[in-house]
Amino acid sequence: MPASRPHAIWCNSGGMATSENKVPAAKPRRVGRPASMAAPRETIMRAASDLFAQGGFAQTSLMDIAAAVGLSKAAVYHYFPTKQVLYDAIVVDLLQRLHDHVAGALPVETEPVGIRLRAAMRGHAEFFEKNFAEYVTLLHGFGGLNRVVSDDERAIRKRYETMFRAIISKGIADGAIRTSDAAVIARGALSMLNWMTRWFDPKGKRRAVDFADDYFDLLAHGILKP
Amino acid sequence: MPASRPHAIWCNSGGMATSENKVPAAKPRRVGRPASMAAPRETIMRAASDLFAQGGFAQTSLMDIAAAVGLSKAAVYHYFPTKQVLYDAIVVDLLQRLHDHVAGALPVETEPVGIRLRAAMRGHAEFFEKNFAEYVTLLHGFGGLNRVVSDDERAIRKRYETMFRAIISKGIADGAIRTSDAAVIARGALSMLNWMTRWFDPKGKRRAVDFADDYFDLLAHGILKP
Repeated sequence: MPASRPHAIWCNSGGMATSENKVPAAKPRRVGRPASMAAPRETIMRAASDLFAQGGFAQTSLMDIAAAVGLSKAAVYHYFPTKQVLYDAIVVDLLQRLHDHVAGALPVETEPVGIRLRAAMRGHAEFFEKNFAEYVTLLHGFGGLNRVVSDDERAIRKRYETMFRAIISKGIADGAIRTSDAAVIARGALSMLNWMTRWFDPKGKRRAVDFADDYFDLLAHGILKP
Repeated sequence: MPASRPHAIWCNSGGMATSENKVPAAKPRRVGRPASMAAPRETIMRAASDLFAQGGFAQTSLMDIAAAVGLSKAAVYHYFPTKQVLYDAIVVDLLQRLHDHVAGALPVETEPVGIRLRAAMRGHAEFFEKNFAEYVTLLHGFGGLNRVVSDDERAIRKRYETMFRAIISKGIADGAIRTSDAAVIARGALSMLNWMTRWFDPKGKRRAVDFADDYFDLLAHGILKP
């Protein structure tokens, strides 16, 4: 299992070495930024993530993305020199927004751990459902042993998990939680939520927060009668 | 989100329409099956799954697979006319073996549900770690919204989940489990186990069964003090 094969996760219907997925040659280029677009970087990222989610990363070219937002390919290159850079930026942005959403949904620290953990789990599920296509792209667009995670992504993932651990650690310190391993509990909670990317149907009858409630109940109270 | 885009999940470094990933033309072909290989189908599947796991599905050609097992490309085509057929066969075989491993590890029905569910979760983790590379290929080689799941795969997945539900339903019937939704519990248990494909390090200090024990404990007893 090679540890670093930065290109091994990429494939492209046009081949590995086309201009689509390589950094453009160093030759200086005048790239136009259209004055009419308020937040081009964000607009490109949002359109790209929709296209990746619907058509697959490999099948979506920077050209497709440019067309979707009404920019020239050169303008897209101005912000994102490669598809990988664009993909990494989407992932980090999404995880940051997930973090901020859950942090914003958290009751104050003086609330009981059960209330806070439930709110965090529901917040996660809410964000997941609201950003379903992007979320699935993020977590399933690539994978396997060769996935290369950027430092920024690693940092935000860690920050997110740390937020869950902190909620739980407070409950352990308070004596409300019977076990002493916050990492195991945080991992269990996040695993149940994260696996929803594999089976959740946004057109189904139940909302993602309903499943989060189920999972919180399992985790909080256990299934066996004492 | 298109429901059926059978080719959208595929990509290939040689392009979408090469002979690598298309069914060969109908022209009859004499394919040789080497007498020296005892179980060519299984040998090809095992080699392919190692190559997919290490190098990625898209980067691995049927030619690479043929070379790895010492067969001609024509001989590989004899068993698997396309990479997709080969991939689907690997997935179904792996899930069947997972099922059989866990079924074989289950204590008799008269044992308490806690003992049986723990054994099932440990059995899952054991199989996962023993077949790590294959397992990650299966669950992460492709994904996203466009993953097309074969009927055989759907059937064996269902059978596997049903086995977990049956263990739990027995516990509900016995009065040992306090809730009444076997599907939620089975899903929670399997989600925690399945998410290990995303972070488990086979070179790490703890074995997969140790994490399964952690998860069983969370699920069985809950985290909040009564």
